[in-house]
This record gives sequence, C-alpha cells and structure tokens, in this order.
Amino acid sequence: MKKHNYSAGPCILPQEVFEKSAQAILDFNNSGLSILEISHRSKDFVAVMDEARALALELLGLEGKGYQALFLAGGASLEFLMVPYNLMKENGKAAYLDSGTWASAAIKEAKYFGETVVVASSKEQNYNNVPKGYSIPADADYFHCTSNNTIFGTQMKELPTTNVPVVCDMSSDIFSRQLDFTKFDIIYAGAQKNMGPAGTTLVVIKEEILGKNGREIPSMLDYAKHIKAESMYNTPPVFPVYASLLTLQWLKKLGGIAAIEKINNAKAELLYNEIDRNPLFKGAAAVEDRSNMNATFLLNNPEHAPIFDTMWKEAGISGLPGHRSVGGYRASMYNAMPIESVQVLVDVMQALEKAV
Amino acid sequence: MKKHNYSAGPCILPQEVFEKSAQAILDFNNSGLSILEISHRSKDFVAVMDEARALALELLGLEGKGYQALFLAGGASLEFLMVPYNLMKENGKAAYLDSGTWASAAIKEAKYFGETVVVASSKEQNYNNVPKGYSIPADADYFHCTSNNTIFGTQMKELPTTNVPVVCDMSSDIFSRQLDFTKFDIIYAGAQKNMGPAGTTLVVIKEEILGKNGREIPSMLDYAKHIKAESMYNTPPVFPVYASLLTLQWLKKLGGIAAIEKINNAKAELLYNEIDRNPLFKGAAAVEDRSNMNATFLLNNPEHAPIFDTMWKEAGISGLPGHRSVGGYRASMYNAMPIESVQVLVDVMQALEKAV
Repeated sequence: MKKHNYSAGPCILPQEVFEKSAQAILDFNNSGLSILEISHRSKDFVAVMDEARALALELLGLEGKGYQALFLAGGASLEFLMVPYNLMKENGKAAYLDSGTWASAAIKEAKYFGETVVVASSKEQNYNNVPKGYSIPADADYFHCTSNNTIFGTQMKELPTTNVPVVCDMSSDIFSRQLDFTKFDIIYAGAQKNMGPAGTTLVVIKEEILGKNGREIPSMLDYAKHIKAESMYNTPPVFPVYASLLTLQWLKKLGGIAAIEKINNAKAELLYNEIDRNPLFKGAAAVEDRSNMNATFLLNNPEHAPIFDTMWKEAGISGLPGHRSVGGYRASMYNAMPIESVQVLVDVMQALEKAV
Repeated sequence: MKKHNYSAGPCILPQEVFEKSAQAILDFNNSGLSILEISHRSKDFVAVMDEARALALELLGLEGKGYQALFLAGGASLEFLMVPYNLMKENGKAAYLDSGTWASAAIKEAKYFGETVVVASSKEQNYNNVPKGYSIPADADYFHCTSNNTIFGTQMKELPTTNVPVVCDMSSDIFSRQLDFTKFDIIYAGAQKNMGPAGTTLVVIKEEILGKNGREIPSMLDYAKHIKAESMYNTPPVFPVYASLLTLQWLKKLGGIAAIEKINNAKAELLYNEIDRNPLFKGAAAVEDRSNMNATFLLNNPEHAPIFDTMWKEAGISGLPGHRSVGGYRASMYNAMPIESVQVLVDVMQALEKAV
C-alpha cells in the first residue's frame, strides 16, 4: 500500500530522488563505481558539489549577489555555534527571536560567546505564535530568527526590519515559499526537510559580513575557510550532498520556488480548512502564524484518539503524532508531499466525524 | 569491466553494502518507506544506531570496559577541535606526534585551545616514517597520535607508552588490525575508509576521562552531551550511519578484525614484495613503517609513467595516482579490497617490467 509520510524530518523526498540515488549507489554516472566509493576530489563529485552550490543560490534568487552556498556536515545545530563564532565580536552582543525549541537551543549556544538579547519570546504561550512588534538593538552584531517552527507549527510571515545582519534558521521551510532572500545575510538549513536526507546542512552566506569580528576561529568552524575551499575543506558528506542535488534538480524542473509555493499553499489550505470546519478538531497554533509546512492540530475530545489513530494508520498514513511538547497531531507537508496525500488525511478526518 | 578501486578515501566498500543500502533507499525493512525519509527517532532507526554503536565496541574488544561509541557528523577534522575542547585544561597543554599532514592539521586546531608540545616530527623527511623514541610529558592533558598516515603510506607499529590519556586518529586503519584498543582513551575515525561512506565519524571514548578540564563546551562539541543523548543529540547522518552498520556487519560475519588482519597482511605482502622485487619500482615509505592500508611507491624512471598509467587503467584499476605531496602511486588496500584486485596490480607491474 502507498504510504503517506507525514514525518517532521527526516521526511518525504521525491520518488525520483530515491530511484536515482539508489541507482547511483549501484553505479554512479556509468563509471562502474558506486557514489559511496568515489573520491570527493573526483571530477564527477566536484561537479556534483559545484552544481548543488550554484543551484541552491539560483533557486533562492541569490546568484551574482555576493552570496556563497556551502554544504557542510554536522547538522543545523552546529550552525547554532558557528554563527556566533563567526559574527559575534568579543564583548559583543547578538539579538535573538525566541519562537520555539530550536530558536531557544540557538540562544543557548550563543551564550558561550557573549551577550544575547532575546528581543521577544512566545515561550509563555508554549510557542503557539511567532512574536511580533519587537525591536532589534541597532548595536547588535546580528539578529537571529527561525523562519518556521517545526514542533509548534508556526511560521514567520513578515521579514524582520533592521540594519544589523540577519541570520535565519530555515531548516524546515527553505525552498518552500518565495521571500526576498536578499534580506538575509546568513541562511542555514539542515537538509532533512525540503532539501535532502539527513547528513548535510546548507549555509548561504553574504560573503561581505565575514571576517569582521576579530575572533580566531578553529578551521572547521570558520565559514571563510569553507568558502575558500569551495565547500571541500574536509571530506564532505558525499551521498547526502548528491541526494540533495537530486532534490534541488527536481524542484527546478517543477518550476522552482514559485511553483512549489502554489502547491504548498493549496495543500495547507485543504488541511487547515478541514481542521477549522470539522467540529472534532482544532488547530494548535495562532491562525495568523500557521505554518504551511507543519500543521499542528488536536482532537477536541481526546477519547476519539484511539479510533482516529486506527483510521489514519489503516489509510497508510505514517508520522502523524504531534511532538510531545504540543501533543495531538502534526501533519508535515513538505515540498515532496503530493496534495493527494493531504486529501487522504482530510478524508480520514471526515470519516471520523461520521463514525463518532 | 570490473573496477579495482584503489581510492584513498572515500573508497571501496563491500559489494553487499552497496546492494543492501540501495535496497534500503527504495524500501527500508519492508516498511514501504525509504531509509532516507524515516524519522531518526523511529524504532527502526534507533535500532540501527544502537546496533552500530554496540558492534563498533564489540569488534574493537571494548564492550563492558567503560567505553562509549558515537557516530557523529562533521568528519574527523571536527574531532581535531573537539578533542582539545573536551580534554585540554585552561592553561593546560597537549602532546602531539607529528607523523603526517592530518596529524599536523590536528596540532593546528589544538593551538586555539592552549599549549601544544610536538613530541616528535618526521616533517623534515616528508613524513616518510613514523617518529620513534620520543618521550611524552607526564603533565600533558593528553597525547594525540595518528595510527596510519594515508598520504604517506606509513603506519604506527608500536603503541605509545604513557600514563596520560591517549587519543588516536585511526581514520585510515580502524578495524584493519588487532591492537590492544584498551590502551586508547579516545579513538576517532572518519567513516570513509574501512567503516562506510563519507558523512559520519566514529568516536570511541573511555567515559571516565570526560568532564575533567573545567571548560564550558558548546553542546554540539561536548562528547558527554552526545553520550547522554545516545548519539542522537541532534539529527544524525542517518544514511551514512546505516551504511556503516552494514559494513560492520559484513566484517563481523567475516570473522572480525582477526580475520581481516590476515587478509590485509596477505594483500600488503603481495604488493610490497612486488615493489621490492621489481627493478622498475621503489617504495616511498621507510620499510619498517610501511602501511598495510596505503602502499606508496614510485617509478625509478619517471619516463615509464605514461605507459604504466595506460596499462593499469586498461586493467580496470582506478584511484592509483599518489597524493601530490609524495607523487608516484598510492595503492589503498582497505578492508573491502579483495586480494584478487591486488594481484591485478601486481600483474600490471610485472607486465610493465617485460614491456620496457
């Protein structure tokens, strides 16, 4: 039976990425060698890395605008400390928006490097909304925000206005919607939502902001060194980068971010309409901040949970339980999820309404 | 035509690892889902991580001896700074053996954290040997060495004798030979030689040495945090860990390190015998320090290079050119390389002798 994979990440990827990457493991580019056994310095893999870096910038509309794209290892969590290491001055300070668990984790790491100013937090409301109306100190070394809060199902709808460099963790909604990406100075994203399998992190950097904080930075944490080495300072995570390239190629063929945004909006509208219409359910996040990637929702009557859980599992749905911080359900509808899978979930919600 | 892959890393892996991992990308454990799209918190992947960690310790004979195994991201180069961050005291010092390019890179990173004492170096001899007869300061916070120098084709044959904690970068010969691994307090190894594809790093730690240096360590660089989180502090590199598990399972089935050591010795003997016998060739490394993993050798007459290069390529050999620091040739004969592939190279060397 076809599976409808609502996992919050690692998550669904396009079927052609599975097929092409499995084939490359058996024989890469008709070389007689597996993608797993070739040198990262081989012509074939250097071409993969170069294309992935260029395509990431192209899709974001950042080509020729002073940005560099890196495919690093370590996960977005490593960026939590690389960002302050590279941008925060000795005795400097950084401003953070606390919109969720991962934003909070980023703040914790920045504290090892200097003063952090939390400009606003929705923690008291269990992060069910994205704070608004905050002001960013003009003397901050940078401002850090999280564009989409995977756990809570909220998403920033407006970009911050500030003259300090803006750093954004876009792990869970990168490549999903059109934004003016030139408003950001560093964008980073763990691959394992919209970009590829777990194991690599995209970091997009406006090069001119580097080299200004006066710190000595260990090589592996130094963005400038990674840029100079063309994202090959050390052996990169070859297979995750290759599978990410396949995913970006799929997105480009589809029509890029403009095309996928329409599909994502349609999927989100379909599901949120049902959450709002169906008397058995309610949304968990503030309506104006609802994420188009992760829809969090609850049963009004928890006693309906066993029958609902049986029904969606029988429909081939997986990965629907909510994060323990929120409870209920979380439907992650990343780029690769077809609207047909969302319809299956909506059908189950309607069937539940009739059954109880 | 069958390829004989002599790449220095990423490198040859067992054929069954390619086949099983390609299958898991199409359908993992008959779940209807790809290994690339499942949650790292899913029961199936937690089982992969747990088995990989346990099997690494089992193969090294370190089970039940106070060690923990982690599969981290970032590459062995990240360990160059994690080691001093976790072990070097403020105003402390660390002792390093400088036996090659990677040892030298590790020393460079340690200098960000405190005093480094280089107990011996073979740099003046272009690292063609492993220094011996050095003494390790008794007040060092730790001693760091590199068991196998991939670029130069040298390998430590004797373990260091010291009372300070011993840290060893075994990236290019882990799981290849029997050693008393209890002599080490931290062993780390990038996967991409004997353990799996690029994208994860095995770190084996004697737990009692942690938490003693008094530094505040950013979370992602803190071994204790990774141990507490059972190697899932953040999303791990799922596929590289899975392919590493498949490689370790293959090694266990084969009979473990004791069995592979015999095969590796036979392969190395076959090739070094030919290097020494064949009047056209000479070894690049000091005979007593020759690596069983990477054999470096040169043509006595560089004018023979074009014909030799044509001949080995025609025989289906790839990845034979030496690193630019040494020149000539480097035959990397990692665990997964069959002796038949080494025989093909020896045959070509003998055919060259007849041809010129």
